[in-house]
Amino acid sequence: MAVATGNITPPCIETYLTDVNRLFEQELRSVLPHVQQLISHVGKFRGKMLRPSLVLLSGLAVQNKPAESAQLGRTHIVLAAVVEMVHVATLVHDDVLDSAEIRRRGATINHLHGNEAAVLLGDLLISHAFHLCSSLESQSASRLIGHTTNIVCEGELTQNHNRGNWKLDEETYLDIIYRKTASLIETSCRLGAAGTNQDKRQIDALALYGRHVGMAFQIIDDVLDIAGTQKTVGKSLGTDIDKGKLTLPMIHFLSTAAPTHRELLMSLLESSEADRVEHVRQLLIPSASMNYARRRAGQMVEDAVAALAVLPESQAKQILIDMARFITVRQS
Amino acid sequence: MAVATGNITPPCIETYLTDVNRLFEQELRSVLPHVQQLISHVGKFRGKMLRPSLVLLSGLAVQNKPAESAQLGRTHIVLAAVVEMVHVATLVHDDVLDSAEIRRRGATINHLHGNEAAVLLGDLLISHAFHLCSSLESQSASRLIGHTTNIVCEGELTQNHNRGNWKLDEETYLDIIYRKTASLIETSCRLGAAGTNQDKRQIDALALYGRHVGMAFQIIDDVLDIAGTQKTVGKSLGTDIDKGKLTLPMIHFLSTAAPTHRELLMSLLESSEADRVEHVRQLLIPSASMNYARRRAGQMVEDAVAALAVLPESQAKQILIDMARFITVRQS
Repeated sequence: MAVATGNITPPCIETYLTDVNRLFEQELRSVLPHVQQLISHVGKFRGKMLRPSLVLLSGLAVQNKPAESAQLGRTHIVLAAVVEMVHVATLVHDDVLDSAEIRRRGATINHLHGNEAAVLLGDLLISHAFHLCSSLESQSASRLIGHTTNIVCEGELTQNHNRGNWKLDEETYLDIIYRKTASLIETSCRLGAAGTNQDKRQIDALALYGRHVGMAFQIIDDVLDIAGTQKTVGKSLGTDIDKGKLTLPMIHFLSTAAPTHRELLMSLLESSEADRVEHVRQLLIPSASMNYARRRAGQMVEDAVAALAVLPESQAKQILIDMARFITVRQS
Repeated sequence: MAVATGNITPPCIETYLTDVNRLFEQELRSVLPHVQQLISHVGKFRGKMLRPSLVLLSGLAVQNKPAESAQLGRTHIVLAAVVEMVHVATLVHDDVLDSAEIRRRGATINHLHGNEAAVLLGDLLISHAFHLCSSLESQSASRLIGHTTNIVCEGELTQNHNRGNWKLDEETYLDIIYRKTASLIETSCRLGAAGTNQDKRQIDALALYGRHVGMAFQIIDDVLDIAGTQKTVGKSLGTDIDKGKLTLPMIHFLSTAAPTHRELLMSLLESSEADRVEHVRQLLIPSASMNYARRRAGQMVEDAVAALAVLPESQAKQILIDMARFITVRQS
């Protein structure tokens, strides 16, 4: 299991992540063999465990206890499994929307079992996420998860609405990625912290950290969709270009590149030739716009780290800092 | 507004249904114009208000008070809006899966705005349903709604898995329609009753009523998909035949009709000719299998009515009986 710090799971959350995985599988287990088959396939999608790790580390980072005595209970395990389930549901539906064929080096559900099964499986995952969340004593987490998924769906709808809009500006792009990606990461940190104590200053600090981390994470995802290789990233790439979704490098390019280059990008985006995605990549990869996007992500990572200043020093805090900084150098 | 008793809303729940509609719209309101546009279109899908009516009437039927003093509070309004939102979400996704173009005499979301927007809008509706449900004080309704949507999704997945399975038997068909339709109607009745008092016998009676009503309702829906006219029913018809989903009349026909007729149905179901749906309808409509299905639905309606015997006499109880009996004669 590889959390977002690289390929090593931080030992302080390793046991908890095992519990999260067990609960994830237990919640989804079905007596219907054809349903269980789909669910088992979904298990292969899970790699980074970024969101559950953030729930757990946020829970530990506000305990104000030495690492060896810090402890988390069932609430955190449930919350971590819930945010992962919500995340996987969005991946399954995203792959339908993107007509993606590859995810985590394997075939997507839509590619293997058709769009119908993928839509329904995404629905099943989101349903189980809420079912599991409502096993907690208080409604507050369910309410926040519901609020967050409202925002995620609105972000996805806004992105879909702006497909083929070559005038999309940076502000709208940032609003879209906040909604579709950063909001759930922000909520993961907030829930993790609030599951431990009620120190509003610490909870808000972790939520702000999560918000910035989520924004940076999505910008790098969008950079990799252009500059990565399918072998390294492990999923279908170039889908943003293919589906007419402008991302930060493209938005920057369209507003700063030489007029002939801008026109070339526009005509490639609008063309229907088979290799237009490859042409767009060749145009963008050597441009300053890729570095611009990476730099913006880097700034957000430093904002995330700065938000943690109010927390006491701890092993969990240090891991959160390392995870944030790893985002900008990640290749997958 | 036309509840399932026909075209007249029972006066004892009229004001409550207005409150349900107001809450439904308020919960879904979006500051994003393109999202609000989709949501407004969804408003047009809502007609029968069967599930919210059942929440309200179940709540009234267990009050053991004269009609004029019976009262419901915010809990019932919230629950009624939640089950309606879940139901509308399933309609939106169903229309994607069925490639349906018409719903309640208007264009479907997928037909107007594409499959992507329809998938995301369904997600938004289910998300808001859970968000709204978690505004209640207790988690118990959220937990039951989550459990129910798990079952609904499994039913839809089972139906999808059995597309083109010409050996589908009646037992599996009944399991599918329990899951995809009756479970939410059962839950609507259970939540409505449990929102009023904790008399287990009365709550279980209403849940059983809802289960039978839901089964009968879906069988008649499947009959109308074959025998109805789009003008009367108001939605795309023949989709079960078109998508290879066997329903009760077809299952009965395949196991009882003369061998030549059975072979004809099989070959039509498997053919790719454009007017095969019409041919299948012409074969089934005059057959005894349509009456068999109607008769099975009629038995279930009487089982539903019988389940209410434990309840005290009341106006709400009488309306529940009338609603159940209306199912078998409905044309839309």
